[in-house]
Amino acid sequence: MRFDAHVEVRLRAGIADPESATIERALPALGFDDVSAMTTGRSFRFAIEAATEEAAAERAHELACRLLANPVMEDVSATVEPARA
Amino acid sequence: MRFDAHVEVRLRAGIADPESATIERALPALGFDDVSAMTTGRSFRFAIEAATEEAAAERAHELACRLLANPVMEDVSATVEPARA
Repeated sequence: MRFDAHVEVRLRAGIADPESATIERALPALGFDDVSAMTTGRSFRFAIEAATEEAAAERAHELACRLLANPVMEDVSATVEPARA
Repeated sequence: MRFDAHVEVRLRAGIADPESATIERALPALGFDDVSAMTTGRSFRFAIEAATEEAAAERAHELACRLLANPVMEDVSATVEPARA
């Protein structure tokens, strides 16, 4: 059975995030004073073949930790849902 | 009222995506033959002050198009939800 997986990789709390800091500095000049607490991350979407949703979720998390993220510096969140036809 | 916004920025269909191609090439060697159709993107999470959820969503989309994405090459999806206390 085919599942759509979404993995989000974000820097762990406490790790310096200059990209977010730069975006936050630009916000007031563009008139976005109502925006705060910016954080950035990377997002991966892929298809995965698995017998059950639990198996697909485990597999997506394994892939994220082995290939997509640096587990020392980054947190991973993986979600799967049955593929839309 | 405070909302949590999540913006995902992805390359438009048809734009070359060498990062995804490189990940796909690495998958078989790591034993992930069950994974396909990899796409990559950038993810932004932030807090936004707005009167209503609709206003927050519109504001998040505006910010994404003006500052976070390159609308020529990238697609934007913005979602908001009331901030968790």
